[in-house]
Amino acid sequence: MYKVDKEYKDLLKQTAKKMHLPVQKLAEKKNPEFRGDYQKKCDKIVDLETAVINCGLKDGMTVSFHHHFRNGDKVVNYVMNKLAQMGFKNLHLAASSLTDVHAPLIDHIKNGVITQISTSGLRGELADSISHGLMENPVIFRSHGGRAAAIANDELHIDVAFLGASSCDYMGNANGYSRTSEEKSICGSLGYAMVDAEYADKVIILTDNIVPYPNAPFAICERDVDYVVEIASVGDSSKISSGAIRDTKNPHDLLLAQTAAKVVANSPYFKEGFSMQTGSGGASLAATQYIGEYMKEAGITARFALGGITSHMVKLHEEGLIKRLLDVQSFDMIAAQSLKNNRFHQQISGNEYANPFEPGSAMNLLDVVILSALEVDVNFNVNVLTGSDGIIRGAIGGHPDTAKGAAMSIIVCPLLRGRIPCVVDKVTTLITPGETVDVIVTDRGVAVNPARKDLLECLQDAKIRLRTIEDLRDEAYSIIGEADPLPFGDKVVGVVTSPEGAVLDIIKNIVE
Amino acid sequence: MYKVDKEYKDLLKQTAKKMHLPVQKLAEKKNPEFRGDYQKKCDKIVDLETAVINCGLKDGMTVSFHHHFRNGDKVVNYVMNKLAQMGFKNLHLAASSLTDVHAPLIDHIKNGVITQISTSGLRGELADSISHGLMENPVIFRSHGGRAAAIANDELHIDVAFLGASSCDYMGNANGYSRTSEEKSICGSLGYAMVDAEYADKVIILTDNIVPYPNAPFAICERDVDYVVEIASVGDSSKISSGAIRDTKNPHDLLLAQTAAKVVANSPYFKEGFSMQTGSGGASLAATQYIGEYMKEAGITARFALGGITSHMVKLHEEGLIKRLLDVQSFDMIAAQSLKNNRFHQQISGNEYANPFEPGSAMNLLDVVILSALEVDVNFNVNVLTGSDGIIRGAIGGHPDTAKGAAMSIIVCPLLRGRIPCVVDKVTTLITPGETVDVIVTDRGVAVNPARKDLLECLQDAKIRLRTIEDLRDEAYSIIGEADPLPFGDKVVGVVTSPEGAVLDIIKNIVE
Repeated sequence: MYKVDKEYKDLLKQTAKKMHLPVQKLAEKKNPEFRGDYQKKCDKIVDLETAVINCGLKDGMTVSFHHHFRNGDKVVNYVMNKLAQMGFKNLHLAASSLTDVHAPLIDHIKNGVITQISTSGLRGELADSISHGLMENPVIFRSHGGRAAAIANDELHIDVAFLGASSCDYMGNANGYSRTSEEKSICGSLGYAMVDAEYADKVIILTDNIVPYPNAPFAICERDVDYVVEIASVGDSSKISSGAIRDTKNPHDLLLAQTAAKVVANSPYFKEGFSMQTGSGGASLAATQYIGEYMKEAGITARFALGGITSHMVKLHEEGLIKRLLDVQSFDMIAAQSLKNNRFHQQISGNEYANPFEPGSAMNLLDVVILSALEVDVNFNVNVLTGSDGIIRGAIGGHPDTAKGAAMSIIVCPLLRGRIPCVVDKVTTLITPGETVDVIVTDRGVAVNPARKDLLECLQDAKIRLRTIEDLRDEAYSIIGEADPLPFGDKVVGVVTSPEGAVLDIIKNIVE
Repeated sequence: MYKVDKEYKDLLKQTAKKMHLPVQKLAEKKNPEFRGDYQKKCDKIVDLETAVINCGLKDGMTVSFHHHFRNGDKVVNYVMNKLAQMGFKNLHLAASSLTDVHAPLIDHIKNGVITQISTSGLRGELADSISHGLMENPVIFRSHGGRAAAIANDELHIDVAFLGASSCDYMGNANGYSRTSEEKSICGSLGYAMVDAEYADKVIILTDNIVPYPNAPFAICERDVDYVVEIASVGDSSKISSGAIRDTKNPHDLLLAQTAAKVVANSPYFKEGFSMQTGSGGASLAATQYIGEYMKEAGITARFALGGITSHMVKLHEEGLIKRLLDVQSFDMIAAQSLKNNRFHQQISGNEYANPFEPGSAMNLLDVVILSALEVDVNFNVNVLTGSDGIIRGAIGGHPDTAKGAAMSIIVCPLLRGRIPCVVDKVTTLITPGETVDVIVTDRGVAVNPARKDLLECLQDAKIRLRTIEDLRDEAYSIIGEADPLPFGDKVVGVVTSPEGAVLDIIKNIVE
């Protein structure tokens, strides 16, 4: 107790009023029950059903997920099964990406549990079904930067985020690795999940590894977390580097990678302190090692590498050739381990990576990005989402973001894939506009965007086989012949948005 | 270009309308001027005057500062001189704390540049002048947790934050140390500044060390930064551990520290995985080493240490006795260097540390906190702000936050300081209510709050000289005699708020 007389009390009140502040009542005593065992009071660990109920999830709301475990993800199916069991309908599933492993969502769509999907990509059975008209509402496809911006601008409002984590303490400090005990599942960076954690109304962390408080360092701070749910497994780490980010030994891919590296090494951007990114796809990822050889030869180092970080990047970092790794997504287990162990390997959020409305986004500071393609066309437009059969089988990822952000964007793409031409008159689906694409590297030659005369000049003396894009297309068509028109129906099954959030293209259903 | 026919264009428009999205216009081309030299476009580095003008600072607005350089701070005076030169008036200066070095602010108060101050503490000439009635408006004193909460709740709205940093890249990624080159000034954690960076309308980083992008890891992300200003020096690191956080060799202080450690070691909280904090003040800081000896003897480790992190804490951390350091403020150069080099030494923001409205605040998970006092009274109330002469000469800091949050709060305080009794009938200024204080350790015995019978029992067998608080007061008064009433005037010069933001006490002017 602090005893004061009436006069003093009046003065306190008077001062408080003048300062627009309340007057302190009795000092609150500590609750003896929680002394020395505060966890009792503040434990956020509950079961999934309780978490969902307490978060106030309702029919029609938007639930979100990250894809850091890629094809090893176990969270999306687990949570959606539970939500279906609980009787929810008409949900909007907003994932940073979806892939083969998410085929079970087909049933939830058929049953009306999910009626809207937003994602960066779709693959496998789910993609196939959607391409054939499974959903009433078209899927909205966003780039990684576009999704981060849409969430930050509240165009994509997340009601409840369900975020898998490789470690979490009972207060919600979460990470994509564990520094306390060996993690059951490691995914490395939680860069895309960091956006959901920051902006979602409610955040539930799912983890298979509860560690003692404080789980420091952390990717997601307990301040942003409402509940923690322990489950058997959040993901199979061995499947992170499957599919589009599998390491290649294909000699055609390695040739593309070597040529891309040669283009980099002969560009004006290849100088001390430059920066680089390689997107998914075997040839793109493989380019790093060849660039590393050029760097050693020339005696220069890169200031940073960005994006999906790979074991190749880590190797150059550990050799001192790349000073900093900015990791929005770890593309393999070695990258995830490096994030855990290398102090200069830093995880960054989707907004720090590629928000188109933030000038400080790291993509804007890129000198060089090397990206893959399913198709390119004579106007340098790129398609990474639909196959030559018109069916969805890819992901936008950070493709249009980094192509626009980087000083030089290089697309690696074979002229033909089997009996399919990859350099065409017009891409099936527009993902990355040709205005932001600088060089196309094929196994039959390299085409430079005519808008980049400066690059053309640099590459002319570099013993690189330079051709026009039309020339490449003509060769492709001369071997295979022009493809028949695709059997598109009249239903719009997908909407492709630009990073800035406008409709760039649509995808129609396939009729067979 | 991506050419489409009219029919297709209509379908795009129609779909966009249905999805409530705009249609993409022409793809924006890259601006050739910035290719490979994006810094040209995005450089946030300007001079201070330009930064101030561009931030739209106006008379009557609130400007904020951090005190991580403590008495070595060079930012507050530098910026306020510039704002005075620029002709600003009627500013509200909201610093996380102010100290001796800020005496030059007196002139800015006299000239009407500053008409309101919010701070955790005041010392030296500035404090003396304010105690004598320098300002029209009373100074609002907040605890560190209270300030973070007031900013988060927009009770304390910051228009422009001026934040000193030991390293910063041209995009604004800032830190209290440098991992690129040797820093001119190191302060370690930027924990209090992180709050300002998150919530202020505009943020200006001042630095004496521009480093290449990306300055990773960073405390403050470029997303939160508007401008970067390079100045000759942001602070004198050697003065961080001066004043209230100077290491003590005083035998009286060491005796208090030893006794406090004994209390800790004999409490029920001293067990594997416990957590601790020591506040400023020689005896409090010195207690860590003695607790470390008890830990070694008993073979137990602490899960974390919190707060102002000291070299003593770092030593125990490096010996494996403290698993994690949660650092809101580095109390000395060794702590700052450790934050730079030890991966499990993590900086946390003022909100993560001690926001009273966030259950996850680390203070709530504290088992033990050891704190200093200028005065304690028979109701266990504590004063850390005003001296026995009634003049402001201290800081609230995290005192009331951690006293309330911790399972056991221990106050170390000599019975007498020279001819001044420190255990009194009633503290001059109420800072930490007795309801949240558990043990008072003096050089003449230890008093346990009667509300903590459980602790009293634990300590009875511990060869600790236990006395009632009244007994201690009587001894103090019997040696010195009761003090004369202080010469307070009628003007309210300071308002003390509780962590929750209510008026707890007022400070009146001193008349001489």
